[in-house]
Amino acid sequence: MFEQLGLIGCGLMGGSFALALKRAGLVKRVVGYSKSPSTLQRARERGVIDVEAPSALLAVSGADLVLVAVPVAATEDTFKAIRHLIGPHTLVMDVGSTKGDVVAAARRALKDHLPGFVPAHPIAGKETAGVEHADAALYRGCQVVLTPLPETDPAQLRQATAVWTALGARVREMSPQDHDAAYATVSHLPHLLAFAAMNAIQAQPEAARFLALAGPGFRDFTRIAASDPSVWRDILLANQAEVLAQSQHFRAALDALEATMREPDPLALQRLIRQASEARSRWPGPAAPAGRPADTAQDAT
Amino acid sequence: MFEQLGLIGCGLMGGSFALALKRAGLVKRVVGYSKSPSTLQRARERGVIDVEAPSALLAVSGADLVLVAVPVAATEDTFKAIRHLIGPHTLVMDVGSTKGDVVAAARRALKDHLPGFVPAHPIAGKETAGVEHADAALYRGCQVVLTPLPETDPAQLRQATAVWTALGARVREMSPQDHDAAYATVSHLPHLLAFAAMNAIQAQPEAARFLALAGPGFRDFTRIAASDPSVWRDILLANQAEVLAQSQHFRAALDALEATMREPDPLALQRLIRQASEARSRWPGPAAPAGRPADTAQDAT
Repeated sequence: MFEQLGLIGCGLMGGSFALALKRAGLVKRVVGYSKSPSTLQRARERGVIDVEAPSALLAVSGADLVLVAVPVAATEDTFKAIRHLIGPHTLVMDVGSTKGDVVAAARRALKDHLPGFVPAHPIAGKETAGVEHADAALYRGCQVVLTPLPETDPAQLRQATAVWTALGARVREMSPQDHDAAYATVSHLPHLLAFAAMNAIQAQPEAARFLALAGPGFRDFTRIAASDPSVWRDILLANQAEVLAQSQHFRAALDALEATMREPDPLALQRLIRQASEARSRWPGPAAPAGRPADTAQDAT
Repeated sequence: MFEQLGLIGCGLMGGSFALALKRAGLVKRVVGYSKSPSTLQRARERGVIDVEAPSALLAVSGADLVLVAVPVAATEDTFKAIRHLIGPHTLVMDVGSTKGDVVAAARRALKDHLPGFVPAHPIAGKETAGVEHADAALYRGCQVVLTPLPETDPAQLRQATAVWTALGARVREMSPQDHDAAYATVSHLPHLLAFAAMNAIQAQPEAARFLALAGPGFRDFTRIAASDPSVWRDILLANQAEVLAQSQHFRAALDALEATMREPDPLALQRLIRQASEARSRWPGPAAPAGRPADTAQDAT
C-alpha cells in the first residue's frame, strides 16, 4: 500500500495506472501534474487524481511512488524537474516504449536517485490517447517489461514487480538494449510500415476510391497507423538506429519476394509465402489476457 | 430459385457459397466437384454438396448456376473443362481475388458462353482455408465486386446481383482493370508487406525471443501473413504489375519517413506520421456487416 502516487503526465497510460492502483486499493492519494491545465482538470473530474499539483516537482513531494508518464522525449526534463523532492525510499517508474534513451536520461538527470528508478514498459495502449480513455483495466493481462540497471536497488525492483503484478500484468525483465532491439522488430517497425502504407495510398489521386473498397484485412493491417503522431515521433527517433536496422531486414525480405514475382518463379514465391504463413500460424499470439482469445483468425481478404 | 448449383472447387469460398445458397432456400440441389477426392467426400458429409460429381464437366451438366471457386491460376483450365456442358441460360461466376487474368481466361476459354459469365470477387475469407471452415454466414455483410464485360448479358448480371444480395452481400460493379488496381493497393500489397515482415523476423537468430514479446499491434498487423500460400502465390502473380507498382509507392513513402528519421527532423517526421494517422482515423472501416463495429480501436502498442 502506497501513501501517495505522484503522477507526472495524466494521459492514457498514466491515468490508467492511477485508476488501476486505486481500484486495487493500493494507494491512498494520487497527486497529479500535467503541463496541460485542461488535462489536469479533467483528470481530477474523472477521479483519476485526487489533487492537482501546480508543478511536477510538487506532485512528487511526499510521494512514495512516482510514475513519469510523459512522451519519452520529455523524460529527461521531467527527471530534472522532480529530482530535488524524490524521497530516499521512493520508487520511480516510467512507461516509455523505448528504454535506452530513458535510461540514458535517468543516468544524466536522476544522479543519487538512480537506484530508486525502475524503467518500465507496459505493452498496452490504445490508438485513442488522452485521459478521457484512461481505463482501470488497461494493464490487466498485459506484459510489462522492466529494464533494471546495475545500480537499481533490488528491493525497488521487487516492489515494481509486485505493483504491476497486482494490477494483473505479467512482468518480464531484460536489458534496455535487448528491449529496444526486440521492440524495434515487433512494434516500432510495424508502426513505421503501417504509416508508410497509409501515406502511399494518400499520395495517389485514387486514394478515396481505393479506401472505399478496403476490407477487414486492410483494417487490421493498418490499425496501428492511427496511433498518436507525437508519441510515435518520439519513439521512432529514440530508437532510430534499431528501427532503421530492422527496416533493412524488412527491405531484404520484400526484395526477395518481389524478385520471385518478377522472374516469375511460382514455386520460389510460394515457398517464401509459406515461410511467412507458417511462422505467423505458429505464433501463439500476445500472451493473452484472460477471457480474450490468444489470436483470432478471421476475414483475410 | 435455382434448380442446380454446379460447384467446382469445394473449399472455403465455394463451400460457404453453397451453404449460404441452401440456407437462403435458393437452390434445390448442389452438385460438387473437387480435384481432391477427400475434400469432395468431406463436402458431402458436411452437407455442403448433395451429389459428388466425378468431373468438373459433370458437375456443370444440368446446372443453371455454376460457381468456379478454384485457385485463380486454375480458372482457365476449369473453363475449358466445363464449357461443353454449360447451358444457354446458365449463370457462371467465379470468386477470384484478381479479375484481369480471370477475364482474359474467360475470353480465351468460354467462347460462346462468355455472355453468361459474371466475374465476381467477394471481399470475404478467413486465414483458415478448407471445406471444414465453410460458413453459411461468410458473405453476409461483405462487399462483392462484379466486373462485367461489354459482352456480359445484362439479365445475367442482374441475376448475379440478386443472388449475392440475397446472401446478404452488398454488390458493386467496376471494370476488371479498376478492380485490380484498387485491390493491389488495399489487399494484395498489404499481404506482400505482411509476408515480408514475418520473413524479415524469421531471418534473424533472435526471432523466437522477439516474437515472444510481440503484442496486440503486431498480432493485427501480421494477421494476413497467415493466409494460404498457394492462393496468394496465384493472386500476387496474376496481379503482379499492379502489385509491384503499388510497392514502389510504398517504398517512396517509407523512404520519406526514414529520411526524416535520419536527419533527424522531428517536425517533418511528426507531419508524415500525422498524415498517416489522420487518414487511418478518417477511414470509416470496411463497410461493416450489421452487428459488427465498423472498426475497433484497441491496444496499439
